[in-house]
Order: sequence, then structure tokens, then C-alpha cells
Amino acid sequence: MAEKHKNDKVTPKVLKGFRDYQPEEEIARADLIEKARTVVERFGFLPIQTPSLEFAETLLGGDYTSDNLKELFGFEGPEQVAMALRYEFTVSLARYVAARPQLTLPFRRYQYGNVWRVDKPGPGRFREFTQFDFDIVGTASMLADAEIISVMTGILEQLGIERYLVRFSNRKLLNGLTAYAGIPPEQAPDVFRVIDKLEKQGREAVVLELGPGRIDISGDKIPGLHLTDDQVKQITDFLDIAEKPGDDILERAQELLGNIETSRRGIDELRQVNGYLADLGISGEKTQIDITIVRGLGYYTGPVYETTLTDLPEYGSVISGGRYDNMIHRFSNRQVPAVGSSFGVDRMLAALVALNTRELKSATADVIVTTMDKDRLTDYLAMVREIRNAGINAELYLGETKNINKQLKYADKIGIPVAVIAGSDEFANGMVTVKDLRAGSAKSEEVADRKEWLKADEIQVTIKRKELISQIKKLLTLHAS
Amino acid sequence: MAEKHKNDKVTPKVLKGFRDYQPEEEIARADLIEKARTVVERFGFLPIQTPSLEFAETLLGGDYTSDNLKELFGFEGPEQVAMALRYEFTVSLARYVAARPQLTLPFRRYQYGNVWRVDKPGPGRFREFTQFDFDIVGTASMLADAEIISVMTGILEQLGIERYLVRFSNRKLLNGLTAYAGIPPEQAPDVFRVIDKLEKQGREAVVLELGPGRIDISGDKIPGLHLTDDQVKQITDFLDIAEKPGDDILERAQELLGNIETSRRGIDELRQVNGYLADLGISGEKTQIDITIVRGLGYYTGPVYETTLTDLPEYGSVISGGRYDNMIHRFSNRQVPAVGSSFGVDRMLAALVALNTRELKSATADVIVTTMDKDRLTDYLAMVREIRNAGINAELYLGETKNINKQLKYADKIGIPVAVIAGSDEFANGMVTVKDLRAGSAKSEEVADRKEWLKADEIQVTIKRKELISQIKKLLTLHAS
Repeated sequence: MAEKHKNDKVTPKVLKGFRDYQPEEEIARADLIEKARTVVERFGFLPIQTPSLEFAETLLGGDYTSDNLKELFGFEGPEQVAMALRYEFTVSLARYVAARPQLTLPFRRYQYGNVWRVDKPGPGRFREFTQFDFDIVGTASMLADAEIISVMTGILEQLGIERYLVRFSNRKLLNGLTAYAGIPPEQAPDVFRVIDKLEKQGREAVVLELGPGRIDISGDKIPGLHLTDDQVKQITDFLDIAEKPGDDILERAQELLGNIETSRRGIDELRQVNGYLADLGISGEKTQIDITIVRGLGYYTGPVYETTLTDLPEYGSVISGGRYDNMIHRFSNRQVPAVGSSFGVDRMLAALVALNTRELKSATADVIVTTMDKDRLTDYLAMVREIRNAGINAELYLGETKNINKQLKYADKIGIPVAVIAGSDEFANGMVTVKDLRAGSAKSEEVADRKEWLKADEIQVTIKRKELISQIKKLLTLHAS
Repeated sequence: MAEKHKNDKVTPKVLKGFRDYQPEEEIARADLIEKARTVVERFGFLPIQTPSLEFAETLLGGDYTSDNLKELFGFEGPEQVAMALRYEFTVSLARYVAARPQLTLPFRRYQYGNVWRVDKPGPGRFREFTQFDFDIVGTASMLADAEIISVMTGILEQLGIERYLVRFSNRKLLNGLTAYAGIPPEQAPDVFRVIDKLEKQGREAVVLELGPGRIDISGDKIPGLHLTDDQVKQITDFLDIAEKPGDDILERAQELLGNIETSRRGIDELRQVNGYLADLGISGEKTQIDITIVRGLGYYTGPVYETTLTDLPEYGSVISGGRYDNMIHRFSNRQVPAVGSSFGVDRMLAALVALNTRELKSATADVIVTTMDKDRLTDYLAMVREIRNAGINAELYLGETKNINKQLKYADKIGIPVAVIAGSDEFANGMVTVKDLRAGSAKSEEVADRKEWLKADEIQVTIKRKELISQIKKLLTLHAS
């Protein structure tokens, strides 16, 4: 139970790992989601929504336990049914497709919304966060993979990010590698997990972890997989191929693993994706085959993709995905291939802020109509109505104070750029004052940049009442430019 | 536990009271939310988001029990904390405000998203649904109430609904009435509950329920409140005032209840709201004082509003709200007055569909590029890329079939209006075929309406490759008109 204030007040706080989004965050999030929606709809993806709560066995399979149910936000709900909040969208998509045998395939769908995970909270790690997924279900064609990568790059560019690199590989290559090295399939995931550390830990650490194990920087012993020297050599031969990226990387992989059927298919799929990307006009500088890409999730079966921001490598992969052709097996015997990708809205927004591509906007209103003379409310209301009818977002000052400076300070705090002011003088002469609040609070060098229009339009002008709308529009246009 | 398929497959179904939204529903929902956002932002409201899960005592107060926790989706979560999914946004708003003593007031905020309630599911009744709230916190001014009503009417009109009536009253009037009739405050909520039945059950039923009780249509005994005849008469005298709506309704209320301070203040507030609405240009035909309006929720303290659709009275109130000046008392000793309103997105959408104001759209793509010759994928990809770059939503056909009729059938099922077709003939001559799928599937009378453009543009035209974009734009413009 949360602590209480004295006299039985409940402490107004949020649960551990949860947060409120304030207006400037929520405005930016909505803008980001809107831009991503524009891109996925440009590619013909269709929106769906699935429930936040699902049956425990939908999310975890029929053999879930009360223990792994606790790793989600799982509980026994109404009618004594075991249920949990979704932790991602892919399982729900699989359920959605499995439940609709008549669904027109291929099905391009997108879904965004919140997911929940019982992770240990930390900086930038929350238990509820917003995810944006886009997937193509019902085709094994590599065209679909190329479309997905194309959407990934489209979203980044729509967000104003120019410097990024999509790297992709194919799980079949790695599966072939373990077959080639004589590693049993049940040990393969452990080997992949170690290879996945290459970028962060370096080659030497990987070699040690494949072999006898190692002592890490903090003195902890990391156990090794105890592969034979031959096996380790076969894996490092493979990793060596990746050291020199370039057009012939697939040829070199073919030389090494060409005898393994699975690898051959993986290499072939990579060639196809590469070709389609060129046809779609995706720059070869922005995409690269990197055969060391693993992707953590177990369900991938073919191409896998990661995207790093050139100026923010520490953010890791900001949009990732891959092909998962066995997706609906939990629910159906049908074979329904699928491929998709997703990004975390909050991490992407943090990246945009870090890249300085956007100034956070804290207000939705562009104009405040102040109310210094409470006897003239009828006039103020008529003005705010007129401004809104002109399609301009406007707020009427609703506080008690008559003090105009306090009212302007309120507007400035919220971030409203333009104020309309009218007192007895103005009313007597059929005039109104329009004040530019951003100019007033601008730093001197910023004002200097704008001296041209400051000459033309004073920071505060008193005009005829009937010129109100055109004067506001003029100021807002100047602000936008 | 849910049943299973044979061979251990999990049945792909959703929890009782939950649902998937299919593309045509989700497209319409997003459009509705977007329109509502436009209106609230026109009024300067700021978006926030609060967590889906809150402390049990945030939602229910410090004295919650395991029983009333079960009425929400409540459970013991990580770190053995009692928590629950929010069932509305107002409590979270109160928590948000209480936690931020520095928040600039008045604070106009909107929030939309899902809420969860353990109601008995039924037709149109779900356990997870989307709600849209807008509130003004931090001012007791009736200007804020007028702004809220103004937003309510603005949203309906933005959605294309012209025939509606906002009825409003003031809780202080009813509080004064019970004082006038000598009814103790603790019995007042029961009296309000009975008055609230006036519209649905009629006056006679209300009189019986205030007095000895009655037998309802199905033979069930509904107990009465056993008020004295005098008390019942005083209440029905009040209800009689409402029988004849009109400008003098407040004068008549004043005559009856003018001696009660609370009522006088309520009447005064109603007069102010009425005046401000006129100043804001809200038509007197669309708003009406109705002193029998109660609103179920206990927390209202002043004006209360309901909105019925003239052509769909059976939908009840589609946007409702009121003033709740004691909102943050659960969390703080500060006095922070507030007023707001909300609507259910799904019910509003159902109303729009019932009013036939919109055709549901099932596709996001306007164009499909078919792929009948799988050797020419490079050309198809170049076309789809060009169409998208022109700002037109376009899908590449990704299925296996080469059969053009099957591909067109796919597009038609999804609802994509325009198809681009190119086979060996077209490629050989540098041509491309553009086909209007909606014209093809149109019923004869619809086609007749469009005969003018059918003359000008055939249902299917073969044009030069470089005319592709302009031809598509021409078709889409004709469709839009």
C-alpha cells in the first residue's frame, strides 16, 4: 500500500515504472505517431486494434505457469480467468489472423498503442510504453521484406532523420553456420546470444565466451559454451567475412557456407531483398548487409533488420524487425508466413530530442484573449469566437485576476505566442491591441535575427477591431517562417 | 482457462467483453478522434497522458477493499502492490494536478485512451473502451462551463451532426430542493437517483418511488423512499417547473426555491452560463436549461450537462459532464475547482454510423500496383515508388498469383479504388493501364449518376507510362467529388 498524507489524504503518485506525459511530451508524441501513420498508410498498411488484456495462454502458450504469468502484468480476473496485459503486439496479431480464416491475404496491418512489461524500471526503462508495429502477413515473398525495410527508412526520413543505417541479415545464415560447425540445434540459441554481443563486447570476448568463458570488467566470471577449437574457428571465420562489408560479402559467405542448404537459401533471400531495395530507390548507403545481426527474439525465421542512428549509436537499434513464418502455430495448423518491424515511440522521441531536430511545443493555442475588464466579457467572448471561427486555435483567459501582466505571464508560461488585449481605452475607440509574446521574451540575438519584421510590426500594435484576424494571421505567419 | 484445440493449439479468441477493431472500424475511430482533437485544440486544450494502471487507493480512496478492487480490473502486481486499470480519467487528472502544485492554472487539458470496467458485457457494452475527456481545472468561473459546453457542440458539429440538444442544469438547484423539502443530505442521493428516472419511467413512477414504491412492468417490487406527501408534493412542484421550458424557467425556480441560498446560487450560475453561451454564439435552439437533469456521478457540485441526438434519442446522452469543485480532495487540502465533459468514442461512432453520416472506409491505399508478370518486378517497384513519392497511398500486390483477376479481386475486397496494370503488351509499348475498380463494382444507378465522367474517362484506360500519376490523380479527384 502507498503511504498516505496526514489526515487520510492519498499520496498523488504513480506506480513504479509508470509515468504521466505532460503536454509538451504528449504533443510531440502525437506528432511523431501521426508522421509514422502517414508513412505506413502511404504503403497501404491498415490499422487494427486488439485488446490490452488477453487470455494468459494467448500470450504465453497453453503451458503457462503462475510464475511466468507474474513476469507480465498477469492476474486472475473476472470469471476466474487467467489474463494479462499484452507485452507486445505480435502474438495478438497471430491470434487475430488465426481467428479469421477468411481474412484477405496478404494483410498489411499496423497497430500502435501501449504494452506492459514487468521489467526492472530504470532511466528510460518503463513498465508501460508505446509501441508502433507494422507487419505483412500471408506472403513468403522477399518483396514484403523489402517493403518493410522501405517503411523503416520512410519513417525515419519523415521524422527528419537523415543519418541512419539499416543493417540486415538472415537467420537462415546463422542456422546454417551452426549446422556447419556441428553445433546441435538446441545449443544454437546460446551461440547466437554470444554472437549478438560482438558489437558491444568485441571479438575477443566473443571468442572466450564461445570457448572457456571469461572474467568481465567487474570481475564476474562469465561461463563459456565450451565449443571445440575447431567450432570456434568456424564461427570466427564466419565473423571475419563481416569485417569487410561490401558487395562481395554474400559471395564470401557462399564460399564458406555454400554447402549447407539452409545457408544457401538465406544468402539467396538476402540477394533478393538487396535487389528489391534498389528497385524501390532505397539508397545503398542507408542499408547494408551485416551477417552478424542476430536479433534477440527466438521467433525469427528469415531476414532480420536493425537500424542505428549515426549520430546516436548509444541508442542501439531504434527500429527493428524480421520475418517470422511460424507465427500463428500457437493457434492454428495453417502455415501463414509473416514479416514486420516496430519501434518504441518514447525512445524514438528521445532520439529526436537528442538530435535536436525539434523544439518541443507546449501549447496548442496560438492566441490568448485576455480579460482585463470583467465587465466586457461579452466582447471578449465574441473575439475568441471570431478567432476560432477563422480556424485559429485560441484560448480565453479564465483566471480570476484582472491584472494584465499576470494574464500575459500565464500565457507565456504555457507557451501561447500571441495575446489579444482590450481595455476601456481600446473599447472606447473601437480598437484592440495584439501583442507578440515570443518577441517579448526572445533573447537579444534572436530578436536581432528578426529585426526586419520587428521594424515592420512592433512587438505590440493597436489596430482597428475589424483588422484583428488579419493582424493575428500576419504575426503567426511571421512566427512560422 | 480457455479451451484448447486438438493437438495443443490455443483457441484464438478474446476475453469476454473485449474485442478486436478491424481496419474499417479503426480508420473511422482514428478519424473521429482526430476531429475531436481539432476542436479541443481550437479551444486551447492541452493533451496529457496518465498511466493505464494506478495505485488501488488512487482510484478507490485509501479505504478500498479487495471486493471493490475486483469491480475494477484490480490485482496485486509487482512488489506486492495493489493496483488496477483506470476506469475513467477524472481521478487520474486529480492526481496529476495534486502532484504538481506549480502547474499553471487554469489548466485546460484533454486526454483520450482506453478505460476498463468489470461490467456485465452485452450488446454495445464492453469491458475496455475508448473515452475522450476535456476539462478545465483551476477556475470556478462559469465562463469555463460555457467553454466546455461550447466544445461539446463544436465536436458534434465537426462530426457532421446538426440535430442535437445540450440540456443543462445545476446540482445546487437539486441540493436546494432537498433542503427545501427537509430531506436530510444523506438521503439526497437516493432522491436524485429517483428524479433521474423521470425521462425514462415517467412522472407517475417517480412519484410512487418517492413515496410507497411500485411494482414494475415485470412484476418486481421497487421499494419507495417513503417521503411524506408534503415532501413528494414539493418535489413534484419543482418538476412541474420543468414541464414548460422557456426563458422564465429560472424565474419560476426562483419563486419556488429562492429562499434557499444554495438554490439561489445555482440559479444565478445557470443565468451566467446561459449568457456566456449566447456571447459565444451557441444557438439557443441547441442548448436548453432542463432542471431535471441529474447526472449519475456523485462528484458533481455545480452545472451538469447532457447531450441527446434528436434523431437517435435511444442512444441517451452522447456527451456529458459537469462541474466537480472538490476533485482533488482525495489527494490534497487545496481547493481546486474543475469542470469537464467526455464522450465514449465507440458509442459516438455507432451513432454516426446509425445517422448514416459516413461510409466506412476499409482501405488506406488508393492505388494497387498489380504484378502479373513476375519477371518485371523491377518495373512494378519503380511504379509504386513513383506513385508514393507523388503523395498517393499505394500498395504493391505481394501475393503469389499471376492471375490478374485474382489480384483485382483482392484489391476490391480490401476496398482499394484504383488498380495499375502492366503486362508484356504494355511494357513493349511503354504504356500502362489504369482501372477504376469502384466504377466496375458500382450498381447501375450509381453508374448512371456518374455517366458524365464515364463518358470522358473509360472505366479502364491504357495510357503512356509518363501519364501514370496524372491519370491516377484524375481518377481519385473524380472519386472524391
